[in-house]
Amino acid sequence: MSCIYGSATSFSAISISHKSSLTSFRPNSKPRIHCAVGGTVAEPKAVNATEPLLLNAVRGLEVERPPVWLMRQAGRYMKSYQIICEKHPSFRERSENVDLVVEISLQPWKVFKPDGVILFSDILTPLSGMNIPFDIVKGKGPVIFNPLRTAADVDQVREFVPEDAVPYVGQALTILRKEVDNQAAVLGFVGAPFTLASYVVEGGSSKHFSKVKRLAFSQPKVLHALLQKFAASMAKYIQYQADNGAQAVQIFDSWATELSPVDFDEFSLPYLKQIVDSVKQTHPKLPLILYASGSGGLLERLPLTGVDVVSLDWTVDMAEGRRRLGPDVAVQGNVDPGVLFGSKEFITNRINDTVRKAGKGKAYFESWPWYCSRYTRGECCPFL
Amino acid sequence: MSCIYGSATSFSAISISHKSSLTSFRPNSKPRIHCAVGGTVAEPKAVNATEPLLLNAVRGLEVERPPVWLMRQAGRYMKSYQIICEKHPSFRERSENVDLVVEISLQPWKVFKPDGVILFSDILTPLSGMNIPFDIVKGKGPVIFNPLRTAADVDQVREFVPEDAVPYVGQALTILRKEVDNQAAVLGFVGAPFTLASYVVEGGSSKHFSKVKRLAFSQPKVLHALLQKFAASMAKYIQYQADNGAQAVQIFDSWATELSPVDFDEFSLPYLKQIVDSVKQTHPKLPLILYASGSGGLLERLPLTGVDVVSLDWTVDMAEGRRRLGPDVAVQGNVDPGVLFGSKEFITNRINDTVRKAGKGKAYFESWPWYCSRYTRGECCPFL
Repeated sequence: MSCIYGSATSFSAISISHKSSLTSFRPNSKPRIHCAVGGTVAEPKAVNATEPLLLNAVRGLEVERPPVWLMRQAGRYMKSYQIICEKHPSFRERSENVDLVVEISLQPWKVFKPDGVILFSDILTPLSGMNIPFDIVKGKGPVIFNPLRTAADVDQVREFVPEDAVPYVGQALTILRKEVDNQAAVLGFVGAPFTLASYVVEGGSSKHFSKVKRLAFSQPKVLHALLQKFAASMAKYIQYQADNGAQAVQIFDSWATELSPVDFDEFSLPYLKQIVDSVKQTHPKLPLILYASGSGGLLERLPLTGVDVVSLDWTVDMAEGRRRLGPDVAVQGNVDPGVLFGSKEFITNRINDTVRKAGKGKAYFESWPWYCSRYTRGECCPFL
Repeated sequence: MSCIYGSATSFSAISISHKSSLTSFRPNSKPRIHCAVGGTVAEPKAVNATEPLLLNAVRGLEVERPPVWLMRQAGRYMKSYQIICEKHPSFRERSENVDLVVEISLQPWKVFKPDGVILFSDILTPLSGMNIPFDIVKGKGPVIFNPLRTAADVDQVREFVPEDAVPYVGQALTILRKEVDNQAAVLGFVGAPFTLASYVVEGGSSKHFSKVKRLAFSQPKVLHALLQKFAASMAKYIQYQADNGAQAVQIFDSWATELSPVDFDEFSLPYLKQIVDSVKQTHPKLPLILYASGSGGLLERLPLTGVDVVSLDWTVDMAEGRRRLGPDVAVQGNVDPGVLFGSKEFITNRINDTVRKAGKGKAYFESWPWYCSRYTRGECCPFL
């Protein structure tokens, strides 16, 4: 889950109610994170009381505590999600049926009341609409049936028209926005061009990214043509998500950090910047969050994309990350989920330490990706 | 392969003979890397002509080109190694039989004549001698038969006495030293305490390191006791390797970068420093190299270990890495092996760019780990 810091405010502590299991679920209870506010408040801006905490914090308004949210897939550890999976074993069905998307998206929110509710979907969801057939197979992950590796392959990729290709996404976001009713921010997301290209060139998940690197280093024009198609399409997709209810959008560039910085500068950064520039023209107030795990070698480059928020992973110290990112960007992250194995006191201290290191400056909020399922099989969320 | 830069010298270029396959093998031919020296030479120190290039470079002496070496496992792509594997399918047999260790260690050197010859072994080789039974299983990797997770388990770990437990390592290094005869540096290696602890707590390789993190965050004293045993043992192991012929030793802390910096400061750094301090007392001139892949969030901390050389992976820009590491440490690395898919001109430019970014300052050398086997199935080495 997650905490945002108003730019003019310093929060000195988060206190966390410790619950030992999901049996402590209290529907519609208030969030169990309470932040003590300390330090001086310089020129505080008034909070817009009708807007979710997360949005106020990203915009630098004074908020009473840092917002907290769970990244997507956080619901996998939930019994209620597992029941849906049994009935609808196809991931594509679950992520392309409006009712299921809404139900699954709301599951963690109903239990934990985080400050953000992220759409249940996948970064590959747009691929079918771009004439790239794929599936997401249980136990195997994404499968691209005809991996793209030549100029002719890339020529076959169609421009993405979200309202025609993925109308269920817009419909689900509209319903989510009504259901959540500004008690939390509804978040959309898209894949970054290089990350999408990695999947469609490799044919699925990869360990060494040898095929996309072969393309990058031997036929860079072909890869650039593909990246350009993804950049234009993902800009449109973000605009579509915003028009239909998303109040902030996270861009996942999960594999950008497999690139050397010099290659990130060529194959990722310009396309991220192009997306942000396009979206800012039509939706100047929509907060854009960039997620690129393992970005310790790239930090100084990430704000150059123009995003509002950078998601820091736990391999970077929050204070050092803040310094390297510079003052113009908000930060999201970054407690190692492994700390959830510690005592309540240990967890509280570690979160307080991260909060303290996040300091003043631009907004900060805590997001916990995949943690519960990976580490504690659902036992962690009530800690938060 | 790899290049070292004398501290007083600037190399402006490396020219590379392009060979398209292993059929271009010329036994006993000179290294095919030639470096053009440029820039000013301030207070050059005389090279010790009897010492290998790599050692002269690490010590800041003027050398005619940056040394190049292939990290261990580089031989896997070689037909000659595959033949040995067929005859001796057990990794432990291949790595614990003096004749096989010597033969395999020399295979890449005989073909490519790099400036370093690293012992064929594994970081887990000492475990049996510490009363931690293990095997390395084809297709699965390391298997620790009785993972250590309690204080009682750690109590059973014996102090490592290299001359009793792994005499074949000393014997192989002695022979290698004679065979290589200072035409290259003979390199030993050990595992870092946290990385070894990860294997023995997890029971083998791991993706999320949940068991060692559980131990770290819930029973830190137990983990510290284990780390202390590994630190004392690995210090002795390095001293033993040096006494038997190793001219430099690389410490592999492959999994340190799974830790948050604050946890690296507690569970890795002090033990690395303890090893370096111990070895420097008895072997003050032995160069120690620290390898910690994915260390973009930790760079400033690595020189605090006291090592002579830090191995940078390709996710950090060489110039930025140099700046963040500071002036007192030499650097090894860091071209993405994926560039080997490019043209000869592309590869040459990328290597020259890295060399230029390494600049003056402390020694620099290029090392290519696993690249050939992972990326080009043996087609790359003759490029180097």
